[in-house]
Amino acid sequence: MTQTIKTQVAIIGGGPAGMLLSILLHREGIDSVVIERATRDHVLSRIRAGVLEWSTVELLRRAGVGERMDREGHVHNGTRVAWKGEHHMMIDSHKYADRQFMAYGQTYITEDLYAEMDRLGGEVHHDAEDVVLHELTDRSYVTFKRGGEDYRVDCAFIAGCDGFHGVSRQSIPDSVQKNFEKVYPFGWLGVMSETPPLDDLWYVQHERGFALASQRSPMLSRYYVQCPIDDKIEDWSDDRFWEELKGRFPPDIAKQIVTGPSIEKSIAPLRSFVSEPMRYGNLFLAGDAAHIVPPTGAKGLNLAASDVYYLWRALVTHFHENSNALIDRYSEAALARVWKTERFSWWLTNLLHVFPDQSPFETRTQEAELDSIAHSETGLAWLSEQYAGFPIEDWG
Amino acid sequence: MTQTIKTQVAIIGGGPAGMLLSILLHREGIDSVVIERATRDHVLSRIRAGVLEWSTVELLRRAGVGERMDREGHVHNGTRVAWKGEHHMMIDSHKYADRQFMAYGQTYITEDLYAEMDRLGGEVHHDAEDVVLHELTDRSYVTFKRGGEDYRVDCAFIAGCDGFHGVSRQSIPDSVQKNFEKVYPFGWLGVMSETPPLDDLWYVQHERGFALASQRSPMLSRYYVQCPIDDKIEDWSDDRFWEELKGRFPPDIAKQIVTGPSIEKSIAPLRSFVSEPMRYGNLFLAGDAAHIVPPTGAKGLNLAASDVYYLWRALVTHFHENSNALIDRYSEAALARVWKTERFSWWLTNLLHVFPDQSPFETRTQEAELDSIAHSETGLAWLSEQYAGFPIEDWG
Repeated sequence: MTQTIKTQVAIIGGGPAGMLLSILLHREGIDSVVIERATRDHVLSRIRAGVLEWSTVELLRRAGVGERMDREGHVHNGTRVAWKGEHHMMIDSHKYADRQFMAYGQTYITEDLYAEMDRLGGEVHHDAEDVVLHELTDRSYVTFKRGGEDYRVDCAFIAGCDGFHGVSRQSIPDSVQKNFEKVYPFGWLGVMSETPPLDDLWYVQHERGFALASQRSPMLSRYYVQCPIDDKIEDWSDDRFWEELKGRFPPDIAKQIVTGPSIEKSIAPLRSFVSEPMRYGNLFLAGDAAHIVPPTGAKGLNLAASDVYYLWRALVTHFHENSNALIDRYSEAALARVWKTERFSWWLTNLLHVFPDQSPFETRTQEAELDSIAHSETGLAWLSEQYAGFPIEDWG
Repeated sequence: MTQTIKTQVAIIGGGPAGMLLSILLHREGIDSVVIERATRDHVLSRIRAGVLEWSTVELLRRAGVGERMDREGHVHNGTRVAWKGEHHMMIDSHKYADRQFMAYGQTYITEDLYAEMDRLGGEVHHDAEDVVLHELTDRSYVTFKRGGEDYRVDCAFIAGCDGFHGVSRQSIPDSVQKNFEKVYPFGWLGVMSETPPLDDLWYVQHERGFALASQRSPMLSRYYVQCPIDDKIEDWSDDRFWEELKGRFPPDIAKQIVTGPSIEKSIAPLRSFVSEPMRYGNLFLAGDAAHIVPPTGAKGLNLAASDVYYLWRALVTHFHENSNALIDRYSEAALARVWKTERFSWWLTNLLHVFPDQSPFETRTQEAELDSIAHSETGLAWLSEQYAGFPIEDWG
């Protein structure tokens, strides 16, 4: 027998985008149900982003989940950049755009969201199998199986927050959906280590490839090096990783890197992807379900947050003011910010990585662009302003 | 019998770079001889650039050849940019970088330089055949034939101002020279017309390709459209050109374009090229002999002018102060500006043209970059500052 649930918004995906949307809607008295394919433990153990734009910080606070972030997160002004083994500049969003960042791991955000959801008694269905979206243009509903039971969720709207591989985007007919994609010919080898991070975040452009130093907490460091896309994780002992990382950093900074055993090590591909439009009938895509950025610039989670903000305000306006004005503008408004951010992430990736087929001319233009920016207050301001995050329309 | 000439600086090439250098040196009492392969009429009839950075304007004034430019040139603040058939922004170097431009054809500059050279009684050998540079690292000299006579010019230094196809760069051993190149998969079809130009300069990005409106004088317009690189000039009637041009401009601007018979029509390839270093022994390369930029951004002549400025000051310091300090820094200082400008010209070309193999993702990132810039005062400032020209070190 099928269990039927009625709600205002069915949210597909229990990652940070879906959970944040559900909590924000709850604060406005709008009812939602979250349907997640993975187990709760799996969702809570994912290691992802960690650098929050200030608009993301403020949205988490509005959702009432900012307390631990404000207590334990590390507020910083931007990121240092090194190239040619020595020169460096500071992408200083505080100085140039009056905005800061919060270093706070996505894992912690997810924990905070789940804790809040538990407190609110929100409805989250984990381990949902065979999730199917029905009748997207009329009386929409979602079906899934769980523990041998069949479920049906009747709803006014569906929020597709289920990531790049999720079912939501795939439920839109090909004839109305246009996909844009770029795959990069290298990967990021990431290591998490229980060691004190460097004082600052660092991006390093080096002839051997890009390197990055980030932080999750005062005793948790996150480092990356660009690697060939077909490298195997077994090829990278901890010793080899630290040696490669330090070899790309300017020597005086490399000396400050505290090494230790890796507690996580993985190779991730880099991809740019956008699917247009972000709405089909009653289905609204948000976050990775609609777009992927390469991790350079740390925009993925922040873009999901601005989608969620727009969608939240649009749904509130629909249910409370009986107006579709914002719902009808969701895709356009979200995509305007998505494309600027896609462009920025693509550009920063091009600027800082070594491409296997890169010509000597292109190597020189990379250096020339870094030099041009570093020697101009205006150039530094433009980079810092984009890094701080593109404007979000004020939807209340 | 060989005629032997003694001079301080042998200048290869009687285009604007070589003539300007010769006149500037003359003002400081330094003797030079210009050797040019083409006829005087040929040099004076070349149609090239027409938009001068303010530092170029000031250098021409210092050379004493600015009188007609100041009287007849058109001072303007920058260039308007249109895309998606409607939106536009203004690259406003006056507003954002406190610098203006002078629209004044290279043809006029060359006339002015030749008139001044005649007045000064400077030595220019046109129709020079078989120009050969000898002993670049020791007692250098140049030989050539002219009207059946053999000439030999003994000199302390040689200035290679003879363009991309000239003999100067080719005289440097391959083992010490590194070349960087990018060839673009399209050309510029240019038309000169004795019609009143638009009030402003315009760059247009359009799905059919780039278009440009420029001006040489109040009754002389210069227009370009991007075209396939293998198009033949016979394929382009005046009617077809005007129709294509207007089709790429926003309709309200297209209406203002005054058409008329073309007085010159040609297709030019686009190339980025840099040769390093710009000095070998007693030979110094300047302008197109060392580097080529695509015409987008109008940087070619301006880059030649900054090379000439550095080389002029370096030679003055050598002859008057008996110091090689600036001569030894010439290549490094010139190349620093060259590479930033190469990067800018390459970037602006990428931003505004349609590439035959362009992906839909890249088309969207072009639009997103234009939108990002247009919606940010900082972005507009960064574009305008670069368009105004990169800083030149003060060498006196």
